[in-house]
Amino acid sequence: MIYLTRRERFSAAHRMYRHEWTDEQNLEIFGKCSNPNWHGHNYELFITVKGEISEDHGCVINMDILKEIIHKNVINKLDHKNMNLEVDFMKGKIATTENLVTAIWNELKGPVEEAGASLHCIRVKETENNSVEYYG
Amino acid sequence: MIYLTRRERFSAAHRMYRHEWTDEQNLEIFGKCSNPNWHGHNYELFITVKGEISEDHGCVINMDILKEIIHKNVINKLDHKNMNLEVDFMKGKIATTENLVTAIWNELKGPVEEAGASLHCIRVKETENNSVEYYG
Amino acid sequence: MIYLTRRERFSAAHRMYRHEWTDEQNLEIFGKCSNPNWHGHNYELFITVKGEISEDHGCVINMDILKEIIHKNVINKLDHKNMNLEVDFMKGKIATTENLVTAIWNELKGPVEEAGASLHCIRVKETENNSVEYYG
Amino acid sequence: MIYLTRRERFSAAHRMYRHEWTDEQNLEIFGKCSNPNWHGHNYELFITVKGEISEDHGCVINMDILKEIIHKNVINKLDHKNMNLEVDFMKGKIATTENLVTAIWNELKGPVEEAGASLHCIRVKETENNSVEYYG
Amino acid sequence: MIYLTRRERFSAAHRMYRHEWTDEQNLEIFGKCSNPNWHGHNYELFITVKGEISEDHGCVINMDILKEIIHKNVINKLDHKNMNLEVDFMKGKIATTENLVTAIWNELKGPVEEAGASLHCIRVKETENNSVEYYG
Amino acid sequence: MIYLTRRERFSAAHRMYRHEWTDEQNLEIFGKCSNPNWHGHNYELFITVKGEISEDHGCVINMDILKEIIHKNVINKLDHKNMNLEVDFMKGKIATTENLVTAIWNELKGPVEEAGASLHCIRVKETENNSVEYYG
Repeated sequence: MIYLTRRERFSAAHRMYRHEWTDEQNLEIFGKCSNPNWHGHNYELFITVKGEISEDHGCVINMDILKEIIHKNVINKLDHKNMNLEVDFMKGKIATTENLVTAIWNELKGPVEEAGASLHCIRVKETENNSVEYYG
Repeated sequence: MIYLTRRERFSAAHRMYRHEWTDEQNLEIFGKCSNPNWHGHNYELFITVKGEISEDHGCVINMDILKEIIHKNVINKLDHKNMNLEVDFMKGKIATTENLVTAIWNELKGPVEEAGASLHCIRVKETENNSVEYYG
Repeated sequence: MIYLTRRERFSAAHRMYRHEWTDEQNLEIFGKCSNPNWHGHNYELFITVKGEISEDHGCVINMDILKEIIHKNVINKLDHKNMNLEVDFMKGKIATTENLVTAIWNELKGPVEEAGASLHCIRVKETENNSVEYYG
Repeated sequence: MIYLTRRERFSAAHRMYRHEWTDEQNLEIFGKCSNPNWHGHNYELFITVKGEISEDHGCVINMDILKEIIHKNVINKLDHKNMNLEVDFMKGKIATTENLVTAIWNELKGPVEEAGASLHCIRVKETENNSVEYYG
Repeated sequence: MIYLTRRERFSAAHRMYRHEWTDEQNLEIFGKCSNPNWHGHNYELFITVKGEISEDHGCVINMDILKEIIHKNVINKLDHKNMNLEVDFMKGKIATTENLVTAIWNELKGPVEEAGASLHCIRVKETENNSVEYYG
Repeated sequence: MIYLTRRERFSAAHRMYRHEWTDEQNLEIFGKCSNPNWHGHNYELFITVKGEISEDHGCVINMDILKEIIHKNVINKLDHKNMNLEVDFMKGKIATTENLVTAIWNELKGPVEEAGASLHCIRVKETENNSVEYYG
């Protein structure tokens, strides 16, 4: 079993808040991350897929196909967007990195399997100090 | 003459647009960077000051004083904020990195000189691929 | 299950040596790392905790609480200190990165659990080429 | 159980191609990576070994011995070489990163065990965006 | 005057050698870098342009135009190529990083000026330890 | 004129203090950096030399010669050492990064010129946030 990791990047605005709460309640729980006027990040996304090495071409998966899957399903929806307002798979969710990794997992699991590999891990690095991983 | 560089970071939302233009005109010039719902970045800020080495303490400037100047005048105003809506020294300016470095220069020049050094360069790295420098 | 990793940093002096051995014996086993006059590093510490996503706030753990736990129990004791002479949880141990990760694990396991998550991994990066991980 | 990771680097030329295929067929499958005139990379190699902490010296393995094993068996054969033409353990294989990690695993497993530790993972980072891992 | 730096990347094979010399003479001067079977690198290219901030759009130069200039004139010719055999602007030159930065300068100076800015610096980072700059 | 930069690294212990002052006075000026039991860093050293490209070999200076100069005169004296107690060119100086860059300049200027290039800049990065440059 081989694990292949692709890094992609996107820049997005977001706000951590729960709509049932007032701005003051959100501020109490989420601090400056709940700023009603938004803030943003350069996110790094690490997608790890696993599979056997193909005897035909020596790869786990064709990298161009993997990149196309990631861009179509995730990057194009998130890059230079507002994560709370514009991203279909984040609608109705608190815009935390924890909720983001599970949502991205759900977007990519099917297409990666259709391409002949298995999705192993989604990791999102929000800043140089904070990152989150999900293994399904 | 010695050059001392301090790196600081801030995460902010912004939108590149000119208010006299329509969203369509802004989109034509600024592309996805003009998204009306904002996007954001992890900015890295490099402040370079210059001066002679003090015979008393062997430094160009006391680092704690320099950090306080940077945080009070720049980081506290930009971090987890909306650059277009909430930052006094960016009011009325197009929120490009070019306008940001000159504005930060103006904020820091006086306080750095009062602390006994000279401001040499403001560099802002917006993404791992794009950065801008200003020397006054 | 979600894995959240926080990076923190500390700069410390240390010396790899075993007090029952002479300086010559330590030099033979540990090489330049046993220099009796000490040397030091910028250590990077990666703390990974795991848990379920809270339906209430969408996070595994409140990041401010996690940071406070790490600083109070680890960073404040190690940063700008001598690892051999001044760090209570390294007393009587050879100051290797291997012994450091297990000691940090013991310091953090309880407080992380009290805060509602589980400690998953302690990783310490001593230089850009050497790092050590411990999973309990 | 402690996991120790050593990073090493090598710069090599390669070409992804299968000799039974024509250049056109290779181009169709491997794209620009199949350029008959070669291209190359700065590869980063991460070797993770595992073991118990020695009560004698507080380490999993003597780092100088580990470095010697890696250089003798892997780095000296790959650095500033052509991966397709000059590397004994890649002969007859398609020069993909997937085939490289399994080949390096086979080169290092025995020597690491003779030195008293176990080989846990071979990771090769081909570019800042692509990496591959193998756990045996 | 504002300085704007764009980073681009390319992976190429090369060999440092002088065709008037034998392989043995090249080996004596260039060491392993003269390997007749080639080796390669992930090159990082930093292009710095300078100019005034446009009152119209707040930028020194339109980033999409700058990227197009760099890709058309430099990246497309170097990426996944053999620097000695396939790159028109390196023909007849020893494939050192010093000769590369001056050649790239000559390729980009005209197009950058046509786009309304001035070329300030070409920097090429061959490995994490070695880089070369040229200011014209 | 071409500028060539070589990065080297060293790990050292130090303490910022002035021997005429008491520990309390040093603490007041230098804070935790004056800890009498020392602390340490992974220092990154960037040496920039300048010169014309040799028509003979296409380089500014032979890299192996430059590396030998840096190691013999600087790295071997600083790596895994105590900067205050063991480094001849820092004797009698406050162990600040400012004093370090000027001292390294003095060590390297002559040998670089003997090798046919000019010393342009010494930069030392003490942490990921702090660095100092000197141009003679």
